[in-house]
Amino acid sequence: MREIDEKEAERHKAKMAKRKAVQDAEVGGKTVEKGLLIVNTGPGKGKTTAAFGLALRMLGHGKRVGVVQFIKGAWHSGEKDAFAAFGDRVSWHTMGEGFTWETQDLQRDIAAAERAWEKAEVLMADPSISLVVLDELNIALRYDYLDLEKVVSSLQARRPDLHVVVTGRNAKPALVEAADLVTEMGQEKHHFSAGVKAQQGIEF
Amino acid sequence: MREIDEKEAERHKAKMAKRKAVQDAEVGGKTVEKGLLIVNTGPGKGKTTAAFGLALRMLGHGKRVGVVQFIKGAWHSGEKDAFAAFGDRVSWHTMGEGFTWETQDLQRDIAAAERAWEKAEVLMADPSISLVVLDELNIALRYDYLDLEKVVSSLQARRPDLHVVVTGRNAKPALVEAADLVTEMGQEKHHFSAGVKAQQGIEF
Repeated sequence: MREIDEKEAERHKAKMAKRKAVQDAEVGGKTVEKGLLIVNTGPGKGKTTAAFGLALRMLGHGKRVGVVQFIKGAWHSGEKDAFAAFGDRVSWHTMGEGFTWETQDLQRDIAAAERAWEKAEVLMADPSISLVVLDELNIALRYDYLDLEKVVSSLQARRPDLHVVVTGRNAKPALVEAADLVTEMGQEKHHFSAGVKAQQGIEF
Repeated sequence: MREIDEKEAERHKAKMAKRKAVQDAEVGGKTVEKGLLIVNTGPGKGKTTAAFGLALRMLGHGKRVGVVQFIKGAWHSGEKDAFAAFGDRVSWHTMGEGFTWETQDLQRDIAAAERAWEKAEVLMADPSISLVVLDELNIALRYDYLDLEKVVSSLQARRPDLHVVVTGRNAKPALVEAADLVTEMGQEKHHFSAGVKAQQGIEF
């Protein structure tokens, strides 16, 4: 174990006491409580997993969550099975038809996105739900499957205590503008470039 | 609903068929299976939540996961309660003493980090565990609570099928170098700047 002499310990203590004062003042200055519009975007991994991590945190507090998957189709995923442990406290809706290069059918993709958005509206209106995850909504907006203005104003008109997380690359500027919290997941390094394939528990 | 004419539908189909060919070739080229060293770093939100989302995904596949929290102390968190739903498939260890500005005691912080690292070694050696989350290990490394070289070589010497996720700001370059997957969570916009306080289910 690293050895600390008395001087270093004292210096550390003084520095941290100062930092605590700054921290306390900052925390004290924050008083607003509100349902947040959260956007996880960018090319890196973690957009959907972080949204599900947040849903898990909410479930840990005894709340209910809703999930709408806009793109992913009805394939088996670990997260869906895991959320089954929380019974009807998770309202899960996989509404996509699969990736656009799988369906190859624009009209069908648009119809699926419309149905998914209708489900999102229902979940957002349900007062028993504290957090709604709109997984890959950004993709549906990027390809103009849905009307951006309609979606953004509906998100802005959400219940004041409702948290919503939107995921997917290439978030539209109007959505970023409307959001309270935006994280851009940047890809620094990816194992796919080293020939590693999609693995159970990591990618699905 | 947006109307699509036949020409647009055809163009879309041709483009997506082409994209599918590229996609299939890419997927086919990836054959390696290995336990990944994953690093979630950067100033943005989502580092820890994405790690827990990954743990959840792994649990959904019936696997066991281990969690060591290097900095957070024994305060109540939603994620910990939520993981209780999975019984002994989650081995959870909150080993921190709280933020450095709370303890104000360098020797105590170092001792806590050492104990946490010992626990991490035990979990990584347990063949029943598929994924280990080392939450905020980057902070312990940044403040030199632990020997960087020792930690990195131990991570590199992990079982070939074990996935490890390390979280925290300011990941050390040697750790990034050793990692398979590195995501930098960038903060584009944060509600704390708008006076919103830490809320249940979002920050804890």
